[in-house]
Amino acid sequence: MYGRPMEKNSLEWQETGSRRVFDCPVFAVRELDSRSPENKTKTFLVMDAADWVISIPVLQDGGERELVMVRQWRHGSRELSLEFPGGVMEKGEDPERAAERELREETAYQAGKLQKLGEFRPNPALMSNTVHIFLAEDLRYTGSQELDDDEFIEVVRVKPREVLRGMGQAPYVHALMGSALALYLREFPLT
Amino acid sequence: MYGRPMEKNSLEWQETGSRRVFDCPVFAVRELDSRSPENKTKTFLVMDAADWVISIPVLQDGGERELVMVRQWRHGSRELSLEFPGGVMEKGEDPERAAERELREETAYQAGKLQKLGEFRPNPALMSNTVHIFLAEDLRYTGSQELDDDEFIEVVRVKPREVLRGMGQAPYVHALMGSALALYLREFPLT
Repeated sequence: MYGRPMEKNSLEWQETGSRRVFDCPVFAVRELDSRSPENKTKTFLVMDAADWVISIPVLQDGGERELVMVRQWRHGSRELSLEFPGGVMEKGEDPERAAERELREETAYQAGKLQKLGEFRPNPALMSNTVHIFLAEDLRYTGSQELDDDEFIEVVRVKPREVLRGMGQAPYVHALMGSALALYLREFPLT
Repeated sequence: MYGRPMEKNSLEWQETGSRRVFDCPVFAVRELDSRSPENKTKTFLVMDAADWVISIPVLQDGGERELVMVRQWRHGSRELSLEFPGGVMEKGEDPERAAERELREETAYQAGKLQKLGEFRPNPALMSNTVHIFLAEDLRYTGSQELDDDEFIEVVRVKPREVLRGMGQAPYVHALMGSALALYLREFPLT
């Protein structure tokens, strides 16, 4: 349409260097030097973290669909959050396996069928990682969650329409769950 | 439904202390001590950053709606990303004013009407900040973008259906734009 500059290639920057400035078990921070389309070099901050996975578990016992969600405390925003199950990928784990594992551990549901709906950068301005989003179907109840000592998770079923109605306010505060819901709505539109 | 433990109150943690461990112009990192529902104390990492705003600018010249989007380089994920306009709130600025300003600077459109659709925590496990999402209507073209020296932004119009179809793959990689789209679809369902 318009913009500075018009050509797509001239929007691209070229990375010229990178230095780690902070490190902790959850993420690392780098200073990154990059050369602009106009050949000026500037320094940015980038966080490196492991990739994440989310699955949207769909139950359909004859009638209306229900989504399996988890309620848990979030330490960053200091509040309870109602979310699709998911978590951090382990080293060497592929996204589908991680999604299946997190679903089983958090909700006690084993997915018979996982379908990738898409992937996003949780925060492409600041972070280098990716979140992989799956639809989980043919759910089989295993009988018990497998939680770590510091995990306290309540499992609930919610109708898709109720999730959509609630999104963007408490307890549906987690932005990545909104992203996942958009991909769900592409598969199963609600009118 | 079930979970450990069953009562909602017993999912909540109690913060007991906090220390800053890293600081830079874009964010700060804190170690945070928190006491679990079972009375065990654990330490977490939390990033503090300014709040963000996003607006979904809707053009409707008689026929089908079009959304105004911006294409720009993202340094965290090292790629071009096609997004709704938005950015970081300035100190003392309220969310609506910031959304209106970012829209005008990035796209050269002045919003006659802004409606808040909701807000999310971009990453409530790790980050304490909020993203505020608006619908922008009655757009008036001002004639020129107001970009910083290091901003290179191409403005395009895209039909909502095309945005939904593309979400979760390049160039629609920014997760918060997926969250914003979910709220848009609540207002204007696509079947």
